[in-house]
Amino acid sequence: MSAIFKNRVRNKALLSKFVENPMDLITAHFRDKQHIGFSGFTGIGSPKVIPNTLCEYTRHHHLNMPGSDKQLRFNLYVGASCGVEEDKMALENMIIKRTPHQVGKQIRKRINSGDTLFFDKNLSLFPQELLYGFYKKDITLPDPNKTDELPSNVLDIVVIEATGIDEDGGIILGPSVGATPEFLAGAEKVIIEINTTLKEMKGLHDLVLQKNPPFRQPLPYTKVNQRLGSEKIYVDIKKVVAVIESQIEDHIPENSPADENSAKIASHLIAFFKNEVKHNRMPKNLLPLQSGIGNVANSVIGGLANSGFKNLQVFTEVFQDSFLDLFANGSLDVASSTSIRLTPKGMARLTQNWDTWSKQIILRPQTVSNNPELIRRLGCIAMNTPVEVDIYGHANSTCVLGSKMLNGIGGSREFLTSAKYSIMHTISARPTPTDPFGITSIVPFVSHVDQTEHDLDVFVTEQGLADLRGLAPRERALKIINNCAHPEYRPLLLKYFSDSVKRSNGKMHEPHDLHKCFEMYFNLEERGSMRAFKKPNEKLT
Amino acid sequence: MSAIFKNRVRNKALLSKFVENPMDLITAHFRDKQHIGFSGFTGIGSPKVIPNTLCEYTRHHHLNMPGSDKQLRFNLYVGASCGVEEDKMALENMIIKRTPHQVGKQIRKRINSGDTLFFDKNLSLFPQELLYGFYKKDITLPDPNKTDELPSNVLDIVVIEATGIDEDGGIILGPSVGATPEFLAGAEKVIIEINTTLKEMKGLHDLVLQKNPPFRQPLPYTKVNQRLGSEKIYVDIKKVVAVIESQIEDHIPENSPADENSAKIASHLIAFFKNEVKHNRMPKNLLPLQSGIGNVANSVIGGLANSGFKNLQVFTEVFQDSFLDLFANGSLDVASSTSIRLTPKGMARLTQNWDTWSKQIILRPQTVSNNPELIRRLGCIAMNTPVEVDIYGHANSTCVLGSKMLNGIGGSREFLTSAKYSIMHTISARPTPTDPFGITSIVPFVSHVDQTEHDLDVFVTEQGLADLRGLAPRERALKIINNCAHPEYRPLLLKYFSDSVKRSNGKMHEPHDLHKCFEMYFNLEERGSMRAFKKPNEKLT
Repeated sequence: MSAIFKNRVRNKALLSKFVENPMDLITAHFRDKQHIGFSGFTGIGSPKVIPNTLCEYTRHHHLNMPGSDKQLRFNLYVGASCGVEEDKMALENMIIKRTPHQVGKQIRKRINSGDTLFFDKNLSLFPQELLYGFYKKDITLPDPNKTDELPSNVLDIVVIEATGIDEDGGIILGPSVGATPEFLAGAEKVIIEINTTLKEMKGLHDLVLQKNPPFRQPLPYTKVNQRLGSEKIYVDIKKVVAVIESQIEDHIPENSPADENSAKIASHLIAFFKNEVKHNRMPKNLLPLQSGIGNVANSVIGGLANSGFKNLQVFTEVFQDSFLDLFANGSLDVASSTSIRLTPKGMARLTQNWDTWSKQIILRPQTVSNNPELIRRLGCIAMNTPVEVDIYGHANSTCVLGSKMLNGIGGSREFLTSAKYSIMHTISARPTPTDPFGITSIVPFVSHVDQTEHDLDVFVTEQGLADLRGLAPRERALKIINNCAHPEYRPLLLKYFSDSVKRSNGKMHEPHDLHKCFEMYFNLEERGSMRAFKKPNEKLT
Repeated sequence: MSAIFKNRVRNKALLSKFVENPMDLITAHFRDKQHIGFSGFTGIGSPKVIPNTLCEYTRHHHLNMPGSDKQLRFNLYVGASCGVEEDKMALENMIIKRTPHQVGKQIRKRINSGDTLFFDKNLSLFPQELLYGFYKKDITLPDPNKTDELPSNVLDIVVIEATGIDEDGGIILGPSVGATPEFLAGAEKVIIEINTTLKEMKGLHDLVLQKNPPFRQPLPYTKVNQRLGSEKIYVDIKKVVAVIESQIEDHIPENSPADENSAKIASHLIAFFKNEVKHNRMPKNLLPLQSGIGNVANSVIGGLANSGFKNLQVFTEVFQDSFLDLFANGSLDVASSTSIRLTPKGMARLTQNWDTWSKQIILRPQTVSNNPELIRRLGCIAMNTPVEVDIYGHANSTCVLGSKMLNGIGGSREFLTSAKYSIMHTISARPTPTDPFGITSIVPFVSHVDQTEHDLDVFVTEQGLADLRGLAPRERALKIINNCAHPEYRPLLLKYFSDSVKRSNGKMHEPHDLHKCFEMYFNLEERGSMRAFKKPNEKLT
């Protein structure tokens, strides 16, 4: 037991649960087909020692080999994506089923090869459905006719990462909250990894745990900077089977620098915001901002940092590097999220400014950070990047060519369906190996729908911005194609639209030609580009 | 001025605004291209005198004729569907644009012929977007940096139906609330029709009007039977340009009697509910029920009336005839909705039992009855009928063959995305002129997506029930096809699925064959049945 670990675990009862060798925990507690939960969100704050040890055990005992009946595989629940440890487990084929989100080459490969089952869920809904008993339907819950108690048998084992434990047993979480409150409530057994490479992050968290209906109460937040919950989290000590030390750090890759196209997207959006302020549709300091992960999202936030807006507020799921610039220039008052996903550079920058900036950051459970109730009440501006949208405003965020899973819906749907401003942004065209504009982000009919036409207010690419509020489908189509499509695809999309209109006698609401709507995908599969060619092997124009 | 009218309008200032001849109001206030709002919801509680007079005026002056430049056409807003008057206006081609929902042969024809633009919107969101200024983007709103006032210029004229006006100017609404609070707040001019054929419905309503963000507060309801708002509604008297009398009744058609198939659906659902209660996933009196409109929905409620559940609660958008049976046998404690859509027989039955039953009914604005915040907090059981679902659980509620609008999404999306139990029910197959099972309700890939796979917990047809909770797409497909598809279509759907799996090397998450996924629609268009035939003109098996 290291001195720093002893210093971090200040509760006697929990300190007495220290286990030196994590392999002892594997053999004692983990069994094939269990339902297990890991803390963490967007690759931050997940346990590392236990997953690594599980992998080592599996490899050493040659489990999960093709044809073998010796299996150690799990139903794995993490708030959103786990760190690299999830990919290591996927490599060992240790995951039977996974929800609600994932990121990693190996896990994606397992899902798309059929080895691992996956279902993506709204991130704020997932922990609640777990506590509704929806994912383990053979168990019986506490009797709701007699008690408002939450079930404590929906997960076999939960492993969380924390940064400390106070004298009173209150657990001090790290840089993410995610589904940890629900996981700890719902677990039969709990293992706590104290990560001593992290600073103790006391004061950052605002933790609430809601009852199941019919006992649920309002989440009475009306301001981004409100704290109504607890700083620390408490768990029934009887459930804790071990407290161990971790000295493994999270690895967040560097962001690619903002490019010309994402800067253009940012400038279109800033002009849009300024016009909204001019008409008094929002206040001068805008409304709470939600921003997805990725290059474009980062660039939009970067653009805001240099556009003169003051007293901005962020109500989002992930705190990212770009927000630090807003803190640095004094334009951001407060940021609420469920995870601080910073690159090593960003984390160093935050640590340098910890005393001031950490007071402006609030980490909440994902049931709060992503809750439609709050997103709607606060009137958020939600900005996310889809895989593609179609001419009527349906968006695909998950399944390439209708079938191949990327990462999952994440928080995009709950923000888009509930925000005051539902915005999607992406580059209008991307390259394939043979065509610099081989893939258009605007297609006639998306091959998979995650967000519907009913949700999208604004769509923006480097080409321009389409304000879709109050528009009917045919109006939307022209606006999206003319303002946002890449010039190489504009004529093709207009032709699809006008041909469909011509064919749509008596069904003119949202004209489609189901015989032709997927042709761009077929071009891509057969000829390496979504652009239609006259002859095979013909050169691109 | 009739004696009963004088008796109903007890506020002096408003009584002085009485106008005898409604035609005077048309010439004085109505202009081409205005944005106008009518009270009403699901064909109940809309104004009738003014729409009829508008139609008369238009006909008489030969307006809106093809090629004519003499136009009187409106952007028309109603909470959901209007009564028959909307169809009369559509016949005169008086509607430029319509939102958020509509029902009627003529209005549907105009939308699908391209004469009328339509966009469907979540019903609780629509009145708020109106007050955000999203539908009239050239106006300026009150400055949110200085005031929390709502705009009063988002609609040119609003016409509402009411059943009385108290001494203090409080308006007593009738059998629907819908978007009336937001319409009255947002209107420049208001006309009130007092319908003297209806009884004065004081005490039925619970009215709240929310501020726009950043001033919005929680809707702190935690129980279906709570009343936290006002019984009456107040309007700035300066805006009221006329109070008139209406003696025209609403016409709600009779429900078709429950048939064998919908009774089977009800019995599957009741067995499901009983199992949920057994596992303590819900209390003995279930959770607040939402039920869509239609034959199946009615039958399910009918089935509940005879299944031994007690102390039921309804939190829905429309109160329908079938709920009266639940009142009659004492199994329903309270029903909250935004409209009482009763047939003449049902209305007579309610009137007979007014003193007891009216105390168990609460009418709320659609921003409350359909609010995701409350639907989620209360843990509703939402039951709706789609046009079709696909094998992975995406649902089409609006657009036949991807293009032809039926009525709109209505409340289905906000209930399905937020309810604890998101249930869809429909008959598995319907006839075409040449095939008694020519249309399957389960298809490989829905031609339009309104509700996504992420929302659906349970799907049920007369064939059986598919519990989809916690299932990945491929698991869902087998469950939906095997449990719910019509036997005539089961082999076809299984073949589509297994062929797609075979083709989906490396994209196995949600296997689709985009070349084949719409073939059933092509069969229907070309051969009058979705079932595949070997040869044209071959007899059905």
